[in-house]
Formats: sequence, structure tokens, C-alpha cells
Amino acid sequence: MSAVKPKLLKGFKDLLPGEMLLREKIISQIREVYESYGFVPLSTPALEYKETLIGYGDEASKQIYMFREPDGYDVGLRFDLTVSLSRVMAMYRDIPRPFKRYQIQPVWRYDKPDPGRFREFLQFDIDTVGTKSMVADAEIITAMSDSLTRLGLKSTIRFSNRKVLNSLLAFSGIPEETAHQLFRVLDKLDKQGLKNVILELGTGRTDDSGDKIAGLGLEDAQIARIEQFLSLNPQTRSDAIQAVSDLFKNVENAEEGIRELTEISEYLDALDIPDDEIVIDLGIARGLDYYTGPVFEAVLTDKRASRVGSVMGGGRYDDLIGRFTGEPVPATGASIGIDRLFAAVRSMGGSDLRSSTADVLVTVMMTERITDYAKVAQMLRREGINTELYTGKQTSIGKQLKYADRQSIPVAVIIGSDEFDAGQVSIKDLGKIKREEVDIKDRKEWVKEKVGQVTIPALDLVNTIRSILAGS
Amino acid sequence: MSAVKPKLLKGFKDLLPGEMLLREKIISQIREVYESYGFVPLSTPALEYKETLIGYGDEASKQIYMFREPDGYDVGLRFDLTVSLSRVMAMYRDIPRPFKRYQIQPVWRYDKPDPGRFREFLQFDIDTVGTKSMVADAEIITAMSDSLTRLGLKSTIRFSNRKVLNSLLAFSGIPEETAHQLFRVLDKLDKQGLKNVILELGTGRTDDSGDKIAGLGLEDAQIARIEQFLSLNPQTRSDAIQAVSDLFKNVENAEEGIRELTEISEYLDALDIPDDEIVIDLGIARGLDYYTGPVFEAVLTDKRASRVGSVMGGGRYDDLIGRFTGEPVPATGASIGIDRLFAAVRSMGGSDLRSSTADVLVTVMMTERITDYAKVAQMLRREGINTELYTGKQTSIGKQLKYADRQSIPVAVIIGSDEFDAGQVSIKDLGKIKREEVDIKDRKEWVKEKVGQVTIPALDLVNTIRSILAGS
Repeated sequence: MSAVKPKLLKGFKDLLPGEMLLREKIISQIREVYESYGFVPLSTPALEYKETLIGYGDEASKQIYMFREPDGYDVGLRFDLTVSLSRVMAMYRDIPRPFKRYQIQPVWRYDKPDPGRFREFLQFDIDTVGTKSMVADAEIITAMSDSLTRLGLKSTIRFSNRKVLNSLLAFSGIPEETAHQLFRVLDKLDKQGLKNVILELGTGRTDDSGDKIAGLGLEDAQIARIEQFLSLNPQTRSDAIQAVSDLFKNVENAEEGIRELTEISEYLDALDIPDDEIVIDLGIARGLDYYTGPVFEAVLTDKRASRVGSVMGGGRYDDLIGRFTGEPVPATGASIGIDRLFAAVRSMGGSDLRSSTADVLVTVMMTERITDYAKVAQMLRREGINTELYTGKQTSIGKQLKYADRQSIPVAVIIGSDEFDAGQVSIKDLGKIKREEVDIKDRKEWVKEKVGQVTIPALDLVNTIRSILAGS
Repeated sequence: MSAVKPKLLKGFKDLLPGEMLLREKIISQIREVYESYGFVPLSTPALEYKETLIGYGDEASKQIYMFREPDGYDVGLRFDLTVSLSRVMAMYRDIPRPFKRYQIQPVWRYDKPDPGRFREFLQFDIDTVGTKSMVADAEIITAMSDSLTRLGLKSTIRFSNRKVLNSLLAFSGIPEETAHQLFRVLDKLDKQGLKNVILELGTGRTDDSGDKIAGLGLEDAQIARIEQFLSLNPQTRSDAIQAVSDLFKNVENAEEGIRELTEISEYLDALDIPDDEIVIDLGIARGLDYYTGPVFEAVLTDKRASRVGSVMGGGRYDDLIGRFTGEPVPATGASIGIDRLFAAVRSMGGSDLRSSTADVLVTVMMTERITDYAKVAQMLRREGINTELYTGKQTSIGKQLKYADRQSIPVAVIIGSDEFDAGQVSIKDLGKIKREEVDIKDRKEWVKEKVGQVTIPALDLVNTIRSILAGS
């Protein structure tokens, strides 16, 4: 046969079972947390009309996979889920509001691929549409925290407010047009430190690789004011609010941003959420232009996951949905970086990915008795034990056990003619080998020999397997 | 604000929360059944190279959304999951075989859209790759049956075998080139009946609307042989095998197809599966060209779902994956029609779609005490009760209750200043209204008035809600 060369597109990836099972588990745990807050699922098409997709500025448009479909319409693959949510809010006017929706679907961006960045990736978005209440923002923040805890990850959620940052512009005498650039520089604080950020606000700097980074060219007096703001180092949420209130006491219209910070803070205090779990970090800006109020992000605090960066982030965007509805529709939400969380969970776990859903492999020693083995497998399934019946071409039990071992199936059932005659079954505890960290050479022996193997009456099969699985 | 007109592409659809929640439930129940057999998940990209996608014949190619991506490559949106599975088998040679994978992802086909057919739809595929064992086919068949039972649907699984149908060609003296056309006509047996099928094999017929349907132009003697085959009316699986063995006793190479039927039949007999649950229906051909052995399909038997047609179907395709691997890789599998199952489950259920994940809405009577309501909501969540805190702009409790009612949230918690002072809460059983089929006019009253409402000590909140939910 002449074969077609199998290739993946650059920037795209397959998820094999081991990765898929872990990813599905992560998604399902986060979903449970958001459902506990009453968020409901939505699904929208991958393709949208060009007119729907554009309008986020040139940069986004260049990233969209756009083409003319056979009916002659210009369409594109969605590059985020927010634009689809906006379209949905405009099309179905009778959706009860507030609409608390989550959506877990892939998006596509024609972007420069690198090891951690793909051109197709799964987005898990949560948004509350149709309310100005800060409780909506607070709930997205606390659910972010809850879901990371649920995944066994230690985290800090940091939040600030775009209105407060706009007051910073007024406080520093910086024109609004510079806001976007300024916020981009502020977002580097975490990685680059205050000193480098100050340089980038002024004349620019040279990075470690010798590359020149242009500065914003702000005046010294302006930079001094920003430095004053960034150097506020409040220990608690209420300290932060006090500090920013004092600093901006002569700034016009500063009250609303501070009120929003305060309302979220009061919610968190009422729920006794410690000051180091969810913190006000005034410098957080988040890159996107469309945020109008609270902005927030989650970072992992465990050292093993420290290189992962922000794993969730978002903010309030009260003016975006109006592009479709023709009237302002307030909204707030966050995106969860499933790929980053996956990396974090892996870096914490250390163990092999389990690539099987089966807890038991029923091996087949005597192919002529295949239906007897099938009956054993079916009986185990009826008892709620996920069971694979070996259907491959290997007739050697050793090779069938190796198959189980490679897929991390923890238990194998072996029945030969002696066992059939005596009404017995043999059970091999393959998981024990992994747990006791038998090295590879010994493992081969262990799999092959009758180590970890017991022969019991057939009637005890279910209970014996249950107790092995309970111990593993 | 000037608004962009929100539009969906023709043939595409949104799934709003009510539909999504039911669809997710259906998928999760089927997945559990297939995982109980040891099937594991796989995910592949939406976009594949053109060379990967084509090769299924012109008809398939015309249905593919194809375009040139910015790097200059010709790519297309996948139109099924089998081609991606084939590519995966060729790219990752060390995947343990048999590889029992399931995959739940959308596919895109530029097809004439009609009410039941979309250009983007979710496919749920299950396949076992790398084994010729009929046990693999039998397991896909029994798991199909198990999963429909799990969904509460009564069904019959019908299976036949392409090798047996090829023997029918030999038996009837029909050239192999006609196989595809013949099988397409045979597949109409269920809908059109034997008489119309016979006409289509010969000179053709005129359908109810007066349209002329061309016939295959077979000779009378050939048609007589096919009629003889189709008129076998075996009552059991073993009768069917006996009948076809007798009929084909002089047909060369008829043994292998009959052996395959027999092996599956023996498996089903060993598991005591009744003859009317999984039946041999010799006329089943399934349209696709690439099947090489067993073919099967599931139909629902309940009258209310009778118009839905076949909800699952598939077969063995031992020659398809070789296009990528360069060597034959045996495989068998089925596709599940999620949209059709959705329609069936809905037609059986009759009740409204539940469009909320929350079991409780904590209403907010006194906005100034929002953090107290937040504490109640958070406490309920910690107890495992999905709870939404009302964050909308309605201040009237009646309107907040209407919001809960519209989303089918079954319980509302109401706390006014009297209750706060007395350490009490009021609970309204909104589900009761639906269960007792109060008509719409009375329902409005019921929601508004204190019907179905109890006031209890705050300490009894969790237990009272649990008992209401248990009874609903």
C-alpha cells in the first residue's frame, strides 16, 4: 500500500488518552465548582460571519482564520468565546438575566506557535451578563479560588480595578490615549520588577539579551506619581483601599473605582476569606482594552508550578456586548487557561499519566473459551467495575499483562484450564508494582512471574478486586 | 450605539443551557458505559491538511470546508473523526493495540441543511483498532445496547455482515461493481418495504409525490435471488445463521461471513442477551463503501421515538486505516447520533428542559445586607447544594422568584428583616408548582403569594432544602 504521510498542522496538537483523561478530570472539577454557583453551559458554532468577528481591532483580525465558505459568505473560526456570547445575548433577548454562563470550546488564533502556545486551544470561559452588581465579580473571583483549591493547587487571586487605574492617569497627569500602553507596561511588574517597569515608563531599557526596549517617554514627575502608586504596599485588602483612598483624595471621580474595590472586599471579608488568598494588587491591569471595572487573575503559589504564570484571568467589560445589542449590557467574566492548569497539575503530580479507563483487564489464555472470559468481564461491568476484555492478537499471558501494564490498568484477571475446572480465578495486582516502585528490570519479571498474584474461588472475584482497587 | 446585526450561519446552531444540560447528561451517560468497557478518550484538531482529508471519494471532498491558511497550506475542517483516528494510528506507532478509543468532537459538512441536518454537528465515535477479533465488534454492539438502556430508551440493535452481502452478489450473479448501488437500495428496506425495494432493483418506481426513481435494471432471475434472501424471516439469531448457511451452501467463500456472524452470535448467547434485543437482520448494509465485515445499527422501538430512525450505527473497516499506515490495520467502530438521541429523549420526556444548574436561589430582599445573603449562599454550596445568589437588578421578591421559576430553579430562600431578627429563613418550594401542574395563571399567583412557603429556624435550612430536593 502507498501511504499518505500523516502530519499535524504546525501549532496544532492531538491529545492522547493519558492527557485527555487528566484534562477531562480538571475540566469536570472546575465545572462542578462553577455549577455550584449556578453557572450554566452554552455552546456556539466554530464558524461565525466575518462581521461578527471583527471589530476588536486590527491585531485580533490578523489572528483570525478567515475564508469564504461555499455559499459565498466571508466567515472565520472564532478566536475567543466572548464575541459568541455577545452575539447570543443579542439574538435571544428573552434569556433571563443575569445570565451566568460557562462555555468550554476550542478557539483558533493564527499566532506564532511556541512550546506553550497553540493555534487551537480550549477555552473555559465564565461570565455573568446583565448585572452591574459587584457581587457578580466577587463570585467569579471566589469561584476561581474554589476551583483551584478543588484541583489541589495553592493559589493567590489578585484583583484591581480599571477605574482606579484610570484615576492613576488623572493623578499622574497622563492623557487617556496612553492608557493602553501604560497598562501593558504595568502588567510586566510581576515578571520584570519595579525598577525595569520604571525604566520602560521613561526612556526605555536594554533587556538581558541586549535587545533595546523602547520606553513610553513619560516625564519624571509623571513617573514619580506612578512609582508612588506602585510602591503602596498594603498588607490587607482594607489597607489597600485605605491607601488608595488617601492617595487619590484630590483626584476627580476616583470614588467609583474605590467603591467597587470596597464592595468586593466587603464580600470577601463576610465570607472570611483570608487576606493572603485573595488580595488587592493595585498594579494588575490585564492587557485587554475592553475592561471597564474590576480586573483579576489567579497565580499559583507552589514553587513547583511557579513558572506557569497566571492560570485564570478576567474582568468587567460593560461596553463590549453593546456592539451587538445596540444598548449597553454590563458583563463580567474570566477565562481559565486549561493548558496551563494541565501543566501545573502535572508538575505537581509527578506520576505517570493513567491512560486507561479500565480498572481490570480480563486476559484470555484459551481463545476457544472466549465467551467464558466475556461473561466474567460483563459480570464485573454490571458490578460497576470498568473492565476491558483482551481482544488483541497476543496469545501469551505475559504479553497481555504487559499490555495492561503499559496502559496502567491496575488489576488483571487470569483464568487457565486448571482454574476453570476448579471454579477459581487468579488475580494479579499490577498497580502494586508501580506503587512499590519496582525498577524496570524487576518489573518485567514481576509482570511475568506470579508475583502479586492470588488464586481465589470465582465467587470471591468481585470483593477481592474491590479491595485491591480500594487500596491502590 | 449602532449595532452589528447578530446572525448565525445557515446550518449552524447555538445550544442554549436547557439543551446543553440535557445533551451533556446524554453524553456523560454514554461515556460511562463505554468507559466501563475500557474505551479511552482522544482529541484531535479541527483542521487537517487537505491530503489527510481527501481520498474518500469526490462526494466527501465536496462536503469539506476547505481553505488556504495564512502559511499557504491547503487545509480543511474535519468532516468525520475516522480520518483523524487513522492519522493518529499512523503517527503514534507505539499506542498499545488494540486501541479502544472514543472521541466526542464536532465535525463540519457543507451539506444541504434541513431541520434535522446541520453543517456542524457533534460526533460521538467509538472504535477498536488493531484487532480482527469479532469480540471487538460484539462489544461495540452490546455497549450500544447498554448505553441506550442507560438513557432509558428501548431499542433493537440489528446487525449483518458485508461479507455475507458480498456472498449475496455471488449467489445472485451480480457483479461486484454494482455492490455499492445494491447496498444503497437494500438500506431502504426499513422505510420503503420489500415491494418498493424489489421495484428499485428492477425497472424503478414512482414515489408518492409522483417522482420517478430509477431502477438498478437487474434481471428477474437476479431479483428473485435477492428476494429469496430478503424473505428469510428467521426468529432467532441461530435461525438466521442456519437459514443463510443453507441458502449459500453452494456459494464460494461464503464461510467467512457466516463464521463472523456466528462468533458474534455466540458472544451474545453467552451473555444471555435476548433474541429480540440484538437481532441478525440480513438486509442491513449501511451506506458507507469502506465496511468489510460486521455492520450494525440501533433503532428505537418506542412508538414516541419511532420517527427518529437509526441512532447509532457502524461496522468493521479493515482496509481504511492502511491509507496512512501503509499496512492493513483492522478496525471496527460506531458513530452515535447525539442530535437524534437528544430528539428521542425529548420526545419521551415531555417535560420542560431544566435550564439551571442551581437547586436554590437565594433572593435578596435588602440589598444593603447583600453580604449576609452571600454568606447563606456560600454555606449552602459548602454543603454540596448548588446555589445561585440573585445578582440582578430586580428588587422585588416576586420578580426574583419569577427569575427562579423561568430557569426551573426548584427552591428559593427568602430572608427579610423579620427573619433576620428572629434567626429564621423562609423557603419556597417552586418545584411543587411545576409538579402539581398548576396552570399558568395560578402559577403567577402561587409564585407571588406565600403558597408553598415555610418559615423555619435558620439552623434547619440545609436539612429542609435537602428534603424538598429529595422529594422533587
